[in-house]
Amino acid sequence: MDRLILHEDPRSGNCYKIKLTAAMLGLPLELRQYDIMKGDTRRPEFLQSVNANGRIPVLQVGHRFLPESNAACWFLAEGSFLIPEDPFDRADMLRWMFFEQYNREPNVATLRFWLHFVGEANLTEHQRGQIMAKRAGGEAALGLMEEKLAGEAWFVGETVTLADIALYAYTHVCEAGGFRLKDYPAICGWLKRVEALPRYVPMT
Amino acid sequence: MDRLILHEDPRSGNCYKIKLTAAMLGLPLELRQYDIMKGDTRRPEFLQSVNANGRIPVLQVGHRFLPESNAACWFLAEGSFLIPEDPFDRADMLRWMFFEQYNREPNVATLRFWLHFVGEANLTEHQRGQIMAKRAGGEAALGLMEEKLAGEAWFVGETVTLADIALYAYTHVCEAGGFRLKDYPAICGWLKRVEALPRYVPMT
Repeated sequence: MDRLILHEDPRSGNCYKIKLTAAMLGLPLELRQYDIMKGDTRRPEFLQSVNANGRIPVLQVGHRFLPESNAACWFLAEGSFLIPEDPFDRADMLRWMFFEQYNREPNVATLRFWLHFVGEANLTEHQRGQIMAKRAGGEAALGLMEEKLAGEAWFVGETVTLADIALYAYTHVCEAGGFRLKDYPAICGWLKRVEALPRYVPMT
Repeated sequence: MDRLILHEDPRSGNCYKIKLTAAMLGLPLELRQYDIMKGDTRRPEFLQSVNANGRIPVLQVGHRFLPESNAACWFLAEGSFLIPEDPFDRADMLRWMFFEQYNREPNVATLRFWLHFVGEANLTEHQRGQIMAKRAGGEAALGLMEEKLAGEAWFVGETVTLADIALYAYTHVCEAGGFRLKDYPAICGWLKRVEALPRYVPMT
């Protein structure tokens, strides 16, 4: 495999997903760090050479650049135990990864970023006006995960897949966004199962 | 393959993606229609038996249910010409599909839904307060697509993939959300290329 370089900010759960996937697969990953709070990923050199969308993470594979955290996890994990062999299960894994980016990330991760890193006092009026809707959206997403995990140990099939890794990243730190994990006992059990996996690494 | 049933609302671009994918692959798809304006997908029977997330589209494959439009497209297209064989290109296709759901859909598709179907006069104050940010987000997403298509005919590689189908769905009707296609000449050329593909079917 080509040399793998992750362009990242260690505070980002989206970056952590890729590091956790690489760790579980024993793949070496070089890190290039950026400070999103200082606008490092909006500078012309980043936009031109790494990602025109101005976002991290970006997985660099040799001379090619792959933005979008879940696409990077897929690239690393193809052909491994983290992607199910059954075609329906494989699509169902992608289903939970799209859910993660559409329903979960913009609510749970954004509130964590706003409340924990930016600080409520520093939010714009427009951002402050969105807090209640994002709280409700985040609780709905966590509620749906709780319902799924009340009956099953993993999101897809009988074992861990990329769906669990993608959903774990921001869920295990959701209290920094004002969500209460004790309201979600099945999620708490699943977080412990993820953390007990061989080669698991914590977010630093 | 098991019997394929699409639970859908014909006004939804997310549902259309799946119908376009099936048409291009010559796969038969039975349709079950719901009216999202009347809350059909929030009723208990839908939540219990089709999708606990209260959303369409859902692709039913025999007795199993697959929500999330891009996951459903993936399921239909696995092993076909619509998914690249090269591993990096396959991940890069998923990258554009995640971009579609994260950066494009919540802005371009939501404004179309609000302005064209709900009507500006019927929006809540909270929704009205989000229009400017969604306009800016939608223009940024379309700008990024324009930049990509200024240099290449398709989003990934030398031919159409699911990335094009996923991005085509709401882009070709974005004017209903107040975006102006004439500002994006490279996108306009690409829309024509998609529409000239064998087995293309229009959104009805």
